[in-house]
Amino acid sequence: MSSTAPTLRDRLYTVIFLHDTRAGKAFDVALLVAVLLSVLAVVLESVEAVRVGYGDALHAVEWVITWAFVVEYALRVYCAPGRLRYAVSFFGLVDLVSILPAFLGLIMPGAQSLQVVRVLRLVRVFRVLKLGHLGGEADSLLLALRASVPKITVFVGSVLTLVVVAGASMYLVEGPAHGFTNIPTGMYWAIVTLTTVGYGDLAPHTPMGKALASLLMILGYGVIAVPTGIVSAEMVRGRREPTLHQCTACGVREDRSDAAFCRACGARFAAR
Amino acid sequence: MSSTAPTLRDRLYTVIFLHDTRAGKAFDVALLVAVLLSVLAVVLESVEAVRVGYGDALHAVEWVITWAFVVEYALRVYCAPGRLRYAVSFFGLVDLVSILPAFLGLIMPGAQSLQVVRVLRLVRVFRVLKLGHLGGEADSLLLALRASVPKITVFVGSVLTLVVVAGASMYLVEGPAHGFTNIPTGMYWAIVTLTTVGYGDLAPHTPMGKALASLLMILGYGVIAVPTGIVSAEMVRGRREPTLHQCTACGVREDRSDAAFCRACGARFAAR
Amino acid sequence: MSSTAPTLRDRLYTVIFLHDTRAGKAFDVALLVAVLLSVLAVVLESVEAVRVGYGDALHAVEWVITWAFVVEYALRVYCAPGRLRYAVSFFGLVDLVSILPAFLGLIMPGAQSLQVVRVLRLVRVFRVLKLGHLGGEADSLLLALRASVPKITVFVGSVLTLVVVAGASMYLVEGPAHGFTNIPTGMYWAIVTLTTVGYGDLAPHTPMGKALASLLMILGYGVIAVPTGIVSAEMVRGRREPTLHQCTACGVREDRSDAAFCRACGARFAAR
Amino acid sequence: MSSTAPTLRDRLYTVIFLHDTRAGKAFDVALLVAVLLSVLAVVLESVEAVRVGYGDALHAVEWVITWAFVVEYALRVYCAPGRLRYAVSFFGLVDLVSILPAFLGLIMPGAQSLQVVRVLRLVRVFRVLKLGHLGGEADSLLLALRASVPKITVFVGSVLTLVVVAGASMYLVEGPAHGFTNIPTGMYWAIVTLTTVGYGDLAPHTPMGKALASLLMILGYGVIAVPTGIVSAEMVRGRREPTLHQCTACGVREDRSDAAFCRACGARFAAR
Repeated sequence: MSSTAPTLRDRLYTVIFLHDTRAGKAFDVALLVAVLLSVLAVVLESVEAVRVGYGDALHAVEWVITWAFVVEYALRVYCAPGRLRYAVSFFGLVDLVSILPAFLGLIMPGAQSLQVVRVLRLVRVFRVLKLGHLGGEADSLLLALRASVPKITVFVGSVLTLVVVAGASMYLVEGPAHGFTNIPTGMYWAIVTLTTVGYGDLAPHTPMGKALASLLMILGYGVIAVPTGIVSAEMVRGRREPTLHQCTACGVREDRSDAAFCRACGARFAAR
Repeated sequence: MSSTAPTLRDRLYTVIFLHDTRAGKAFDVALLVAVLLSVLAVVLESVEAVRVGYGDALHAVEWVITWAFVVEYALRVYCAPGRLRYAVSFFGLVDLVSILPAFLGLIMPGAQSLQVVRVLRLVRVFRVLKLGHLGGEADSLLLALRASVPKITVFVGSVLTLVVVAGASMYLVEGPAHGFTNIPTGMYWAIVTLTTVGYGDLAPHTPMGKALASLLMILGYGVIAVPTGIVSAEMVRGRREPTLHQCTACGVREDRSDAAFCRACGARFAAR
Repeated sequence: MSSTAPTLRDRLYTVIFLHDTRAGKAFDVALLVAVLLSVLAVVLESVEAVRVGYGDALHAVEWVITWAFVVEYALRVYCAPGRLRYAVSFFGLVDLVSILPAFLGLIMPGAQSLQVVRVLRLVRVFRVLKLGHLGGEADSLLLALRASVPKITVFVGSVLTLVVVAGASMYLVEGPAHGFTNIPTGMYWAIVTLTTVGYGDLAPHTPMGKALASLLMILGYGVIAVPTGIVSAEMVRGRREPTLHQCTACGVREDRSDAAFCRACGARFAAR
Repeated sequence: MSSTAPTLRDRLYTVIFLHDTRAGKAFDVALLVAVLLSVLAVVLESVEAVRVGYGDALHAVEWVITWAFVVEYALRVYCAPGRLRYAVSFFGLVDLVSILPAFLGLIMPGAQSLQVVRVLRLVRVFRVLKLGHLGGEADSLLLALRASVPKITVFVGSVLTLVVVAGASMYLVEGPAHGFTNIPTGMYWAIVTLTTVGYGDLAPHTPMGKALASLLMILGYGVIAVPTGIVSAEMVRGRREPTLHQCTACGVREDRSDAAFCRACGARFAAR
């Protein structure tokens, strides 16, 4: 791309794919509004009273937005530096799937009236993720979460072991007579209990079952502290790295703002 | 306002709007008691047994407090430096709305017996917020919350996306036969589940729905850790770095605001 | 008390009130076992099947422990340095109330069979608190909690304001038809929801009520983070004060282990 | 064990008990897959529809895995340095109990069809714990939990005291008419409430009971913050002070274990 005379494709690319120009930001906001409107339309359409009363209006909104997305998709494919790479990327596929359901009705008569096809349009909600950059805060949240992934994996593994053992025990203790018809049902109950959701669709009836459930709840009380502790620790740590400098001599990274010398090779950092 | 001879209006202003004199503090406490009494009266009046037995007493309390508030409102308008600015400020409007419902009955016969009008008096509870300064602790809580607002916005956005997807999935999987009559109902269920409230008015009945719900609960388990981690990190930070200065002699950083000497080399800090 | 020839009263005092001799520790453990046995007896006695089958055995245990407590109380009063001060102290009253219910039956025929009298014996469970010193960990927990009290007060105040507003709103929106018969009931529902307990005995039925409830739950999600953040921050801070030294020159306390000079007066700390 | 010519037993030991060779890792992964498949088989077999349709396939999987475990157990006993010590160790017993249920049917006709015997095979799930070393993250989680054990003990003790008092109070206030048939049932309700599980199988019906329950929930709100605070503080600490050394030149403390030079003055740390 020549920097002296930007072509139409270059300018479109700047508006559609980048976010740092005024036009690019306006495009992002317009996209966000369109996605939210569209999601709202799908959600409301599922309510029978609304569908009966305002079906036509929702239909109109739906078609306007769908056509806008079609035009946008065409422009994206046109101005993307790597067209195929965009088309098969996660966001490229989301963009495509966002517009397909509306046209299924034209190809397959009756498909439009299928619930699944109508709801599939909700995949558009993922387009919001592309706008995550609007606030830089998402990064620090994601960083804290990503840094916690190994600990969370170990944790989820332990929780699932506990769920299997607790679910099987309740299956033996309470049995089908009290709704624990099989081990998967017992595991479902254990998850409902351990996460403190507690619907009450399944609850222990025998004294032994109640004792077991009480034990699981007390355990869950301690267990719920673990993911919170993990994320809190990561966030406290994340906070302590507001300024990073890298040693020009050995490449080690330093996250302490009061460091004047590299801790690895002793080279003096440049004054900042 | 002349500082040599304070007028009545000045003195009233000191008592009613400021909180640092003895009279001002006594006024605040009297106001707090009146608000709490009034809220208690409205709450109790809604209980039929109490209304039947003690209706007259509650009425009397109500009228005494309302007239006190009327007098207070008049005095506030009289002594406020900017009368109109006070009248249209948030607290000015709360003060006005606090006394209006009691008089609606005089203007519109029958209005007094309307539930909405009676309950509207509860708006007085917001008057307590004005007294937040009584404890300086509210500030540090608010600071931690305010510093967390951008992260919490991103977080609530992600949660709502999850709620839309989970609600729509359950609407498809469980369907109206099991109470998931439309997507908003599914979203209501997803919020009830993700926040671990779990009323049990809606619960999955199919194995597929139970598996989906289990996944959402495990996710919710991790998700609930995020706001807690955010606020914890802010509070740890709030405690730790109220003001930073760095020793010019040895470079050590100090995060205690009461430090006059460097803890590492004993050099005196420059006055700030 | 003479330190050269300890009297019987002195020796009893050492065993019963202090915890640092071997006999004193053995006494504490015996007391703990007696209290737990007694609590277990009261709890089991409330189960009809157990009462019918093992009533006599429970009765025997009860009387043995009660007489042991009577003897212990007499000895405590005898050897306490300030007898009246002990008798009217919190633990003195707990000790007294622990033994009274068993004798009520002798004074008032029939009282023994009253549920309230039988259950009142559970007040003994508070005697365990006296043994809190056994693990020094309770102190650090209590310190963190006590340091958080002002923040928690502000927090509970805000939560109660939210509960009043939410309870009154649901009373207006859902009304008695859906179980929200008065504002206190609405407030009970709001507490059940905000704390994520969610029994489901009261749940919103109208779309408007469900929307309001969803909002409250999302709010509660953030709100639940606050007390956790408060306690976490206090505990992180508590941890950072493993070694305290106090400036001999000006009396300022220092909680940083790397401090060599007093931050307030610049005096050098003694090497440790 | 001679290091010059490893015997078959040595090589088996390396593969089966150690995890640092390629063969050892492959063995671990194979074991993990076998355990998970076996657990899945037991869980699915408890579902009647699956048992009827795929009983034979599940049976075949079960026998293949059981025989693999038998061979593995024999090899473990053969190559363990201390055979008896392995056989009576926790994991040795788990390994043995993992294979016994399948053979009980041969010894006791009919035993195989007993639910308990079939479910007992789930003890295999504990074999996964042996693989915990695969991710080193489990250690830091366990460390944080272990360091928190004394605090958590004090905490659980206080919670149980609260549970006894709350359970007995509700038994008196609500009574058998509303399902609180005895104190253990009241304690079960208190645990369900305090942990915010809230099934709703037991809920207060009287105004007094609702007030008590509300108080317990608000308390539980603060109480749930304690274990989270404990674990968070341990994790923040775990991150921060893995190893400390102090600069002999300027006195600055360093908590990063990879530091070779002081970040404040550039002096080289003594080798450790």
